[in-house]
Amino acid sequence: MATQRATPAYDTLAGTWKKLHHFSHLQALASWDRMSMMPSGGNAARAEAMAEMDGLLHSIRTDPQLRSYIDAAESEPLGDLDKANLREIRRDWRSANALPADLVQRQSLANATCEHAWREQRPANDWQGFLENFRAVLKCSRAQAAFLSSETGLKPYDALMDFYEPGMTSEKLDVLFDDLLTWLPDLVRKVRLKQASQNVLPPVGPFSRAAQHAVGLEVMTLLGFDFNAGRLDESAHPFCGGVPEDTRLTTRYRDDDFVGSLMGTIHETGHGRYEQSLPRDLLGQPVAWARSAGIHESQSLSFEMQIGLSRAFVGLMAPAIVKHFGTQPAFDAENLYQHLIRVQPNFIRVEADELTYPLHVILRYRIERDLIEGRVEAEDIPDVWDKAMAELLDVDTCGNYKNGCMQDVHWAEGLFGYFPSYTLGAMYAAQWFAGIRRQVPDFDTRMAFGELHLAFDWLKTNIWAHGSRLTTEELVIRATGTPLDATHYRRHLETRYLGD
Amino acid sequence: MATQRATPAYDTLAGTWKKLHHFSHLQALASWDRMSMMPSGGNAARAEAMAEMDGLLHSIRTDPQLRSYIDAAESEPLGDLDKANLREIRRDWRSANALPADLVQRQSLANATCEHAWREQRPANDWQGFLENFRAVLKCSRAQAAFLSSETGLKPYDALMDFYEPGMTSEKLDVLFDDLLTWLPDLVRKVRLKQASQNVLPPVGPFSRAAQHAVGLEVMTLLGFDFNAGRLDESAHPFCGGVPEDTRLTTRYRDDDFVGSLMGTIHETGHGRYEQSLPRDLLGQPVAWARSAGIHESQSLSFEMQIGLSRAFVGLMAPAIVKHFGTQPAFDAENLYQHLIRVQPNFIRVEADELTYPLHVILRYRIERDLIEGRVEAEDIPDVWDKAMAELLDVDTCGNYKNGCMQDVHWAEGLFGYFPSYTLGAMYAAQWFAGIRRQVPDFDTRMAFGELHLAFDWLKTNIWAHGSRLTTEELVIRATGTPLDATHYRRHLETRYLGD
Repeated sequence: MATQRATPAYDTLAGTWKKLHHFSHLQALASWDRMSMMPSGGNAARAEAMAEMDGLLHSIRTDPQLRSYIDAAESEPLGDLDKANLREIRRDWRSANALPADLVQRQSLANATCEHAWREQRPANDWQGFLENFRAVLKCSRAQAAFLSSETGLKPYDALMDFYEPGMTSEKLDVLFDDLLTWLPDLVRKVRLKQASQNVLPPVGPFSRAAQHAVGLEVMTLLGFDFNAGRLDESAHPFCGGVPEDTRLTTRYRDDDFVGSLMGTIHETGHGRYEQSLPRDLLGQPVAWARSAGIHESQSLSFEMQIGLSRAFVGLMAPAIVKHFGTQPAFDAENLYQHLIRVQPNFIRVEADELTYPLHVILRYRIERDLIEGRVEAEDIPDVWDKAMAELLDVDTCGNYKNGCMQDVHWAEGLFGYFPSYTLGAMYAAQWFAGIRRQVPDFDTRMAFGELHLAFDWLKTNIWAHGSRLTTEELVIRATGTPLDATHYRRHLETRYLGD
Repeated sequence: MATQRATPAYDTLAGTWKKLHHFSHLQALASWDRMSMMPSGGNAARAEAMAEMDGLLHSIRTDPQLRSYIDAAESEPLGDLDKANLREIRRDWRSANALPADLVQRQSLANATCEHAWREQRPANDWQGFLENFRAVLKCSRAQAAFLSSETGLKPYDALMDFYEPGMTSEKLDVLFDDLLTWLPDLVRKVRLKQASQNVLPPVGPFSRAAQHAVGLEVMTLLGFDFNAGRLDESAHPFCGGVPEDTRLTTRYRDDDFVGSLMGTIHETGHGRYEQSLPRDLLGQPVAWARSAGIHESQSLSFEMQIGLSRAFVGLMAPAIVKHFGTQPAFDAENLYQHLIRVQPNFIRVEADELTYPLHVILRYRIERDLIEGRVEAEDIPDVWDKAMAELLDVDTCGNYKNGCMQDVHWAEGLFGYFPSYTLGAMYAAQWFAGIRRQVPDFDTRMAFGELHLAFDWLKTNIWAHGSRLTTEELVIRATGTPLDATHYRRHLETRYLGD
């Protein structure tokens, strides 16, 4: 006979979060559909339905009884795993209970309205139209930040960032980013000088969407994506959505260029494999969730930058490119590699090369921090944006809202505090692969022979399988022996771009 | 200042059903996705999430306070529209409250499991595997019928049918269907004799899926489908799903035949236009719902049989067929028309011609009625099926489960009492078009010139715009002057198939 566990409070909490898991499944699906499938006329009804669900999820998380269950569970005889789960339950509960229900509903509606209109306003370069919706988004996000700040004692922006990157603060970030700015612009200059003398053939389009989709599917297969538990579709802004049991990736296609779509697909595949490989037996509990946005991005950037942009992997995917687009001189593997690592400051973050990408992030981080903390207003964004683009990237975005401050979906949907995760992720990813190379001496040679499992096995063992069992710092130390160390990132960039 | 309406109980009910509308939106989307998009590995998580939502919807509908609100609302000063809404609210409430919550959840899980496995069991002709899941489905449906029966005083099967076709009973159906069997088999014989002497060229495939999809989209556009509020996708069994604000149609493709997919698409477009044209300002309230399954099928069959199979419409869609499949002699409009109205008894209901279709329905009606009322057991189905197919259609289905009793999704997902609606719908549709022809003398000539709005306008004014404001009988009488009169159906079939 099974012995009865004496953990009634914990068991009640686990049941509640299982229910949240079920309802969140429907919400995640509705969100994916809204971005990838839904015709425009369906938006008002969808926004209302999702706001209702947001309200329900919030009301479950804010049930007044939960506080006493959480406190009672602390003194129950829990194993390590359940203890970690309780820690994450408390974290989720705390962030939900900082916000009043009417703010949650107003915010859901404001964000959905703004995001949906953005899809047509962006191509129309309609900043004024966007601004009208965005004021409500910002107002809600500031209110949210104020509530979370008073709950946690963190600064308003840090309180938002804590949701994505627990433990990270703008003070720590300023140190990391200020240091980056002491060497990165110089590296960019050196690399551009070096590349100016190289003769690299650009691929010649057009590239049909069907062929791009087929290449994407082949490369995802090469990268181990499980199509029995996921899909690839199209959306205005690429993302990884759905649920761990059914992970929905999207990309977007341009007829004249396949690289953006392909590298985007590889990026989302990294997110997707993390989700698909979270501990299956624990799904439905917070301890099975992905650790943080920074760790999530460290997976997408492991796939995109560490694997995808490696000479070894470019050699492995070149045949699929030739197969679906036909032969052309630019598809010679070495030429393709040189083309992919070409550095060229550009308007668009998601199309930016590996070297200038962090500059886009630092620009956004500074603006959104000041937006949330009231030092910048919604209508000031274009000005601040244009100045920073000119200074950091020497790019002119004046009047070009669609390729300037309207390019990202994040702010349109009220996502503040996320952008730093991209560059934190790039730093973590460099640290992972430094760790792998210490463990596997012939790593790069073996990867070139198709032994991709070397990378996947390490990531699975050290990152994916843990879910949220460990804190971010514990995870990083256990995987690599030290906390976050940005020198791996600098060394990675210098080796790739100046090494040969 | 606005005057406050003194209808607090009614207003509370309207708020509750608005909430149900929002949550049902998410459930409808999840259901559409499960059938058309979801990879197989996502099913267990999806089934659990949808069962949770079924439980929530059920708990809202069974809130003990609702009874007193409904009773109180009866004596509030309501206008006609609100009175009709209250009638439909009571109807929805009554059917939900006949069922205990645990049955609702068990049934949702049993149906989802059976339906999902059926998708692979059907092509594998795996009756034994299907039977194992189906026993649980039948058990739940019988329990459901017993509860509804004791609530309504109707026979168990009638109590299920009442959900789809309020007011219809097996006693009335037996009269209609027995009468049909006195003249339809004879008509089938005469028509087959007549057609045997006609020389009709069949279209020659293969027909690419992309071209079939393109033809489907063009024909849907011709039929006025609003793509700003809907989509066309693929699924194992075609259906019209989603929500009125965003109607999701599906079809399925065969490389060697485009007619099944095309006529299926036209059929679903009829359902879709009804949904898209329900009274927008009332959406979210039961009075805005489609009237009944029979009336719904009368729309799909108005599109498929009355319009789609008319000589006029075949002439209108022939150019789209030539455009996407290329020229061939069979695409001559008159030849295509004769090909489409070809009568040939066949295994598959959804591919059946207009004349033999009702025989498929009568067969299923009799079996499912006996299944629910315990005169037939799950394991008896193949035997009963094979005998009836031989008798009614002279077709041998022995051992051929996939083209026999496993061909439809209905029973796999616990849908009993629905099949009669198809033939009731065909009868109603004939009555609508008899009505239109009385009102518009040159109807057929003008349709041939592309004036399809003549049909759409009539359907919109007389059916779509009413939602559930009228009872079925009121709706039919107001639209055509008489209650359901099956002589229109007989006359329609005789005119089309023997008239020229």
